[in-house]
Amino acid sequence: MKGKKDISEAVIKRLPRYYRLLQEMTETNETRVSSGSISERLGYSASQVRQDLSCFGEFGKQGLGYDVSYLMGEIEKIIGLTRTYQMILIGYGNIGRALAGYAGFRDNGFRIQAVFDVRIASDSDLQGIEFYDVSKLDRYISQRHPDIAVIAVPKTSAQAVADRVIGAGIRSIWNFAPIDLACGDGIKVENINMSESLYTLCYRMNH
Amino acid sequence: MKGKKDISEAVIKRLPRYYRLLQEMTETNETRVSSGSISERLGYSASQVRQDLSCFGEFGKQGLGYDVSYLMGEIEKIIGLTRTYQMILIGYGNIGRALAGYAGFRDNGFRIQAVFDVRIASDSDLQGIEFYDVSKLDRYISQRHPDIAVIAVPKTSAQAVADRVIGAGIRSIWNFAPIDLACGDGIKVENINMSESLYTLCYRMNH
Repeated sequence: MKGKKDISEAVIKRLPRYYRLLQEMTETNETRVSSGSISERLGYSASQVRQDLSCFGEFGKQGLGYDVSYLMGEIEKIIGLTRTYQMILIGYGNIGRALAGYAGFRDNGFRIQAVFDVRIASDSDLQGIEFYDVSKLDRYISQRHPDIAVIAVPKTSAQAVADRVIGAGIRSIWNFAPIDLACGDGIKVENINMSESLYTLCYRMNH
Repeated sequence: MKGKKDISEAVIKRLPRYYRLLQEMTETNETRVSSGSISERLGYSASQVRQDLSCFGEFGKQGLGYDVSYLMGEIEKIIGLTRTYQMILIGYGNIGRALAGYAGFRDNGFRIQAVFDVRIASDSDLQGIEFYDVSKLDRYISQRHPDIAVIAVPKTSAQAVADRVIGAGIRSIWNFAPIDLACGDGIKVENINMSESLYTLCYRMNH
């Protein structure tokens, strides 16, 4: 991404939402969109939208708006969706099963290669996914070099699993355990914390 | 919550994380905590922590810090975790199954009462949850008045489901479909968008 401006945390968080909106527009064959229309559909101000999108180098034209497929392509490149990512999943409980069975990620270039659990699982519905005992985890990572480890184990073992996968060479973690992982510099971690989301809803219900 | 200051969006987002940390401290029998220690564990600045916690009325004492169980109790009251919430789940696919099977929510006072799907499902592992065809949805809501509708249907039907549950009386939605629901004033919506989280991770991996 040489030549692009540094993009702020806040813009990074909004990027996927722009991308998703543009995907939806592509599906419904919309070819151009104004900042005003993006603003309405995502709930950001129009000037916020224009400022965010200016990070990607090309301004839309006054009165003409943005070219949907061009803008989508640019955001794809910036996010890094122009390649495939190999993922391993550790933990095959409720959430792990849901993730392994969800085709949406695969369609967007994220492929679960292998599943690790303390009980060797297997699932004939899931073609192309290998199932291993968690004792095989370190060796698998050092031999196969997956891009992302998805952690879906209980919170009591999440840090130990994170330490192991990082020790074996993983640099990126998608964490579903309700715990802040201590992972050290250079390791990228994104969390899905369902309880926090539910508590936020709960707060809003009461105020 | 009379007498409490208005709490900003940013603090609302941090509240569940304070709560989770205090829960963890209770489990390990910690009784007092300083803003500095909270700061280290959550990654906010100590002055941010002090400022946030001052919203709850009672300051910790210089050098003594906060009483863990008192602070946890206050946050519980502010979030609204002092009562039980009845939830219905619409959509029994991968994510719906994971949610129905997850005991963690129930332990924190969120109880899935009934599951609705286009195919009548049933799951003998899930005691206490009723399974219905989605045609029974409106009537169920108007008779039983659940607090929260959890939407876990494909994105193409999510808006229609939202419209139906709101029409039948639901005021709070926990949405897992990757779409921004248009719900009108007064309806509280919280989204879990897994693709957006994965894209954010992806961006960080590439920068």
